[in-house]
Amino acid sequence: MNKNGIVRSMGNPLLTVCDVKPSREGFVVKGIFNCGATKYKDEYILLCRVSEAIDPENEDTVEVPIIVEEEEKSIFQSISIRKSEHPEYCFNDSRTITKGEDANNDIVYLTTLSHLRIARSKDGIHFVLDDAPSIMPNADEESWGMEDPRITQIGDVYYINYTAVSPIGAATSLISTRDFVSFERHGIIFLPENKDVTIFPEKIHGKYYCFNRPVPKGIGTPDIWISESEDLLHWGKYRHFYGVTDGWENGRTGGGAPPIKTDKGWIKIYHAADKKNRYCLGAFLLDLDDPKKIIAKSKVPLLEPDMPYEMEGFFDQVVFTCGAIKENDRILIYYGAADACICMAEITLNDLYLHLEV
Amino acid sequence: MNKNGIVRSMGNPLLTVCDVKPSREGFVVKGIFNCGATKYKDEYILLCRVSEAIDPENEDTVEVPIIVEEEEKSIFQSISIRKSEHPEYCFNDSRTITKGEDANNDIVYLTTLSHLRIARSKDGIHFVLDDAPSIMPNADEESWGMEDPRITQIGDVYYINYTAVSPIGAATSLISTRDFVSFERHGIIFLPENKDVTIFPEKIHGKYYCFNRPVPKGIGTPDIWISESEDLLHWGKYRHFYGVTDGWENGRTGGGAPPIKTDKGWIKIYHAADKKNRYCLGAFLLDLDDPKKIIAKSKVPLLEPDMPYEMEGFFDQVVFTCGAIKENDRILIYYGAADACICMAEITLNDLYLHLEV
Repeated sequence: MNKNGIVRSMGNPLLTVCDVKPSREGFVVKGIFNCGATKYKDEYILLCRVSEAIDPENEDTVEVPIIVEEEEKSIFQSISIRKSEHPEYCFNDSRTITKGEDANNDIVYLTTLSHLRIARSKDGIHFVLDDAPSIMPNADEESWGMEDPRITQIGDVYYINYTAVSPIGAATSLISTRDFVSFERHGIIFLPENKDVTIFPEKIHGKYYCFNRPVPKGIGTPDIWISESEDLLHWGKYRHFYGVTDGWENGRTGGGAPPIKTDKGWIKIYHAADKKNRYCLGAFLLDLDDPKKIIAKSKVPLLEPDMPYEMEGFFDQVVFTCGAIKENDRILIYYGAADACICMAEITLNDLYLHLEV
Repeated sequence: MNKNGIVRSMGNPLLTVCDVKPSREGFVVKGIFNCGATKYKDEYILLCRVSEAIDPENEDTVEVPIIVEEEEKSIFQSISIRKSEHPEYCFNDSRTITKGEDANNDIVYLTTLSHLRIARSKDGIHFVLDDAPSIMPNADEESWGMEDPRITQIGDVYYINYTAVSPIGAATSLISTRDFVSFERHGIIFLPENKDVTIFPEKIHGKYYCFNRPVPKGIGTPDIWISESEDLLHWGKYRHFYGVTDGWENGRTGGGAPPIKTDKGWIKIYHAADKKNRYCLGAFLLDLDDPKKIIAKSKVPLLEPDMPYEMEGFFDQVVFTCGAIKENDRILIYYGAADACICMAEITLNDLYLHLEV
């Protein structure tokens, strides 16, 4: 137990690349991480982001996997990028090929392609991953992949929002399912660049609410915004919610897990990164009647990269959640570690309230 | 008449800084440009962007005008930036103070503050500008100004969307009016960074449509998107519409004037800039039933900076429209020239159809 009362699962990491069957021959699994989490019937469900790459033939080459349309079908294609032929490109960030030193700007390609895959468990710790992708990216707005799914249950419907990545930008799209077998696509609900969308699990005074995190280019920083909707498909009434601050939050803040209702308010686990891209988790306690109002929040990280599997991976020093589950008086936080594996940490509500400061 | 059949008004420029009374003592008017345009009762109405600055005491200083809240009122404040104290800042772009050479990134301050002001005319050429601002920015999401208004008449209501600029980003907000005297604010309808929103003047198959132009940071270019709404306040069903191409369109594309209905389709005047920030106007002819479908478009600019008032101003080489009016068989395009003055150019529908290529 660390000072915040948060406890990492003894089973960590719960899922690693060794558990993942590649989606096709020639693909190498680079990570299974950043999963949406929910309970369905008597099972825990993780909807995992699985990232794959193609091993290049030589060190001078990067093979970029993308989805293209051929005869009205979405199929894989590989683009060979020779480093020696592109002195203008930067290959320093494991996740991207960029035109400059800054990985957050002028991204030319991603090095991996992500799809979504379901893992199931009876106890919330031991998960069995499907052998095949549950949802594959299409050739339109997802030709570079589907990333970081969040699941929000509203009635009998499970809404899955995720980052749809393509050369036109990183947008947020919505899918719904009633059974985690068939999935209905609803298209883009937030324009590029907008990630880290988390939808509240019920209406508040007649409106749906969600958080999202636009990344403006000219003016402003990657901050959390809140918005309203009547149908989950059309959003508006945008208000700035929480910005970049100092220390562990000085680079970016973003969505994390969909909010969880408790007696004292909405619990919202979020992530923040510093300028060196070290990602931590924090939490807000929000007014039940007005989710824009912060009652209390983490002054220090609730969880920060510390264990070996969090410190080193595909992208180092990352704990990043897309889903948390309330289990009686405990919150189970499922999180991606170092863009490589899936872990869990839990905290009692009492310990969480003690951690949060007014 | 140039090769496209477009004719600049003999009265150009219609409005210049000489016509504008500063909104307060100590302010210098830097430009009156980028105006929304409509007809109301028996008058032509231009809702003009008026940009003002504070003349600094010496050459080493830039005085940045902003709006702040004091005792629940929005008031002016001036921030003095001494160039010699900020070697990390770049002052090359007349419009901004940035942290780097690129004016489209890391904007620290704007050098001017814009508000909206009405000009009226009986003939569409001779305009009389109000002495005072019609709509002033508030201290929230507009503390750096209100820019580039577009007017769309739907029934008896005139909807005004504009760029709301503040340190949290450049968003699009909506205001409505029935009389151009009292104005109702509806808040942010598109998150940062999103400008150049143009709303269609009627529902198409039961839905409102608009174009908008997000500017993503990491992946993608400043392209035009189209979206749907049922109430003009909540938007969704986003689809990519038209991207950056070659030549005069290789830097950015964006909204321009709200679409105009004609027998042959929707006429949409838009702007495009090349990588050197030379702004031209072009046009689309869109399917009446499905405005995502381009029937024909400008292959060469419909209007490009050429006249002295377009070549030199507050920001050089710009023709930029926010409003056009259909007058029998002619389209009157009101446009900002060089971020300094307001001009008009007209073209007959026949000449416009001839200009557009399939």
